[in-house]
Amino acid sequence: MTTASSLKAAQAVDENRLWGRVMQMATHGGTPKGGVNRQALSDEDRAARAELTAWAKAHDFEVSQDATANLYIRRTGSDPSLPPVVTGSHLDSQPTGGKYDGAYGVMAGFEVLEALEAAGIRTKRSIEVVAWMNEEGSRFQPGAMGSAIYAGKYRLADYLETRDPKGAVLGEELAATLKALPVRERSEAPKPAAYVEAHIEQGPILEAKGLQIGAVTLVQGSRRYTIEIIGEEAHAGTTPLKARKDAMKAGAAIVMALEKAFEDPADVVRYTVGMFQVFPGSANTVPGRVLFSIDFRHPDKETLVRLTSQIEGIAKANARGCEVTVTRISDVSPTPFDPAIVGLVQDVAKALSLPSHAMISGAGHDAMHVAHLCPTGMIFVPCGRGISHNEAESATPADLAAGARVLAATLVELADR
Amino acid sequence: MTTASSLKAAQAVDENRLWGRVMQMATHGGTPKGGVNRQALSDEDRAARAELTAWAKAHDFEVSQDATANLYIRRTGSDPSLPPVVTGSHLDSQPTGGKYDGAYGVMAGFEVLEALEAAGIRTKRSIEVVAWMNEEGSRFQPGAMGSAIYAGKYRLADYLETRDPKGAVLGEELAATLKALPVRERSEAPKPAAYVEAHIEQGPILEAKGLQIGAVTLVQGSRRYTIEIIGEEAHAGTTPLKARKDAMKAGAAIVMALEKAFEDPADVVRYTVGMFQVFPGSANTVPGRVLFSIDFRHPDKETLVRLTSQIEGIAKANARGCEVTVTRISDVSPTPFDPAIVGLVQDVAKALSLPSHAMISGAGHDAMHVAHLCPTGMIFVPCGRGISHNEAESATPADLAAGARVLAATLVELADR
Repeated sequence: MTTASSLKAAQAVDENRLWGRVMQMATHGGTPKGGVNRQALSDEDRAARAELTAWAKAHDFEVSQDATANLYIRRTGSDPSLPPVVTGSHLDSQPTGGKYDGAYGVMAGFEVLEALEAAGIRTKRSIEVVAWMNEEGSRFQPGAMGSAIYAGKYRLADYLETRDPKGAVLGEELAATLKALPVRERSEAPKPAAYVEAHIEQGPILEAKGLQIGAVTLVQGSRRYTIEIIGEEAHAGTTPLKARKDAMKAGAAIVMALEKAFEDPADVVRYTVGMFQVFPGSANTVPGRVLFSIDFRHPDKETLVRLTSQIEGIAKANARGCEVTVTRISDVSPTPFDPAIVGLVQDVAKALSLPSHAMISGAGHDAMHVAHLCPTGMIFVPCGRGISHNEAESATPADLAAGARVLAATLVELADR
Repeated sequence: MTTASSLKAAQAVDENRLWGRVMQMATHGGTPKGGVNRQALSDEDRAARAELTAWAKAHDFEVSQDATANLYIRRTGSDPSLPPVVTGSHLDSQPTGGKYDGAYGVMAGFEVLEALEAAGIRTKRSIEVVAWMNEEGSRFQPGAMGSAIYAGKYRLADYLETRDPKGAVLGEELAATLKALPVRERSEAPKPAAYVEAHIEQGPILEAKGLQIGAVTLVQGSRRYTIEIIGEEAHAGTTPLKARKDAMKAGAAIVMALEKAFEDPADVVRYTVGMFQVFPGSANTVPGRVLFSIDFRHPDKETLVRLTSQIEGIAKANARGCEVTVTRISDVSPTPFDPAIVGLVQDVAKALSLPSHAMISGAGHDAMHVAHLCPTGMIFVPCGRGISHNEAESATPADLAAGARVLAATLVELADR
């Protein structure tokens, strides 16, 4: 089912070379705790882009960037007129992120290009590695911005005036990032023949199953909300509890009531309150205002909609005399991947004697946007204890190499079609 | 029961002069919303101290400050060798505080001195007005610092290296505050003959009863705690709820479980979570750390101890796999005031045809520390809707003047003994 050429490409993947690239990339924005702070369009991000470009030029790969600062490394196929097969991920990180989230997918793609060079394999279609701009959205919201613009889901013009928490303007940081990298600008991105992204799982499932390869079938849907509670500041010692409009206790009551409403014995629901701010925040003042976030995710669209539609009613029922405003700030439906790509990943893994597990992605990825353009899939590899978005994020050289081998064979299969 | 001299002093209290002083003092740190931000040892606090000193010097009152920056204004009595009768409160405010909390007690005391001047009354003992340093504790913890040091309950040396949230050091701010005011330094504070403090109620009781005067019998006890929860940062989309150590949800569960444990149909318990901080505070990251405050108050010592002794057990029972550390940062027993002073306040109010209400203080005050040195009492006046520690704090000129009249007569009675 898999060709000799694709198996040869997989065998040419070099675990040490790949690990060395990943470790070298992690020096850009490396933190004392062993993590990475390399937020989108920062100096650290620019340094990472420059180093990847230098590696690509050493091989005579074609390097270009578009107006969104998506960065493309292309190894030309024997028929350059055909749409390319594309892989990639992102180089930007969370402020307290790890070495592998995103960077692994770019390094795995680049390792495939290097393996093809080493093995002397010429594919029919070109293979292109992309580093998408601003996947994390930690500095400039929303995340997955570069891939969404590439896929025509967002317009760059709508985000040029977005500011980071320190007031820096996206348009200016973007222009400086583009200027810092003297490579060809490309105005039009051709629609790819297919897209396959490698990524660490960011969850505990593969590790628990003792498997190296996840064949991702779907990215679960997500909805994000901001809840604002307006109560009344009052003196902590004098104001009877029954006379209070305590925004803090209303907030805690809402968080707990939603937890109860979202109870799920199957543990599929993902309900997170990551931000919870209390004002004025003084120990002896009853809080007059609370602002908190809800991140809700589910693989099933109907369940996603049904459960989140309860948020406003439950919040208001637990407001305790405060005013409550619920604002939905994002709504992403579940994104199924192309069954043919998922099947190919599974077949290739089997041919490489790497048992795989068909699984959903809990996290959003650039692939969920690209899936609207062309047949798309993802390959997951394990990470330690499922920990990600954390400086303690970890992965093993063997697991990263296994994922790169499956990626190499999958891309070659697709590029020779 | 009250002397002609004390009634004459009360009649000499000038409502307009007092209101004008209160409004002028509120310009130091005045906020656009009509409140005051005049935190301890700030530039605004220094300006308030300078203006009070200028008013005092215009009358030839003696002005001095001690090493703690407690500021004293003395009107000398006919026998200066006798211990003085002392009144006062504080000029510092919460960051979003009102015009009356603290400042009223200092202005009411100063109005008594001015009324005595205007009426030509010479008391036997000196009468002294004190502006205690750092009652609020919002900038430098703990609060009521100046009066506690004066009363020998705290030692200044233990707080010189305390820092405010921006990193400013108390010792340096204290030195600059002292230097900014060129008045006599006094090294020893003589034990007062008695202490009576006027203050807005900061609660809704007097307003609800339609009374202008509260004769305070007791300051309820308080215990304050910091709870730190250490969980584990994780990706909001990928980590199953059962695999999380979610510090945010543990925090909300603890807040709610304590609320249940502290349920009190009589509504005497005061249980407040005023500070609740979540780290890293990103919408798509499961919080790995929460830090929150508990402020618990009760007038009955046994109940205070019994209920707060449950905090650690309930916190640990709701930790949800996180590590929980409970630290008690203050412990103040209920402070009963001197029955003779309480009775005098009631008698004086009656003689002035101002019906009074015997009541406890929900808030802590400088008087609770001074009560360990000498016979002590407090006079409350109403504030609008009981709102305090809020820029919307309000009071009427007539109520403030009524309190100052009772204060004037009480101080003169005590000063002539």
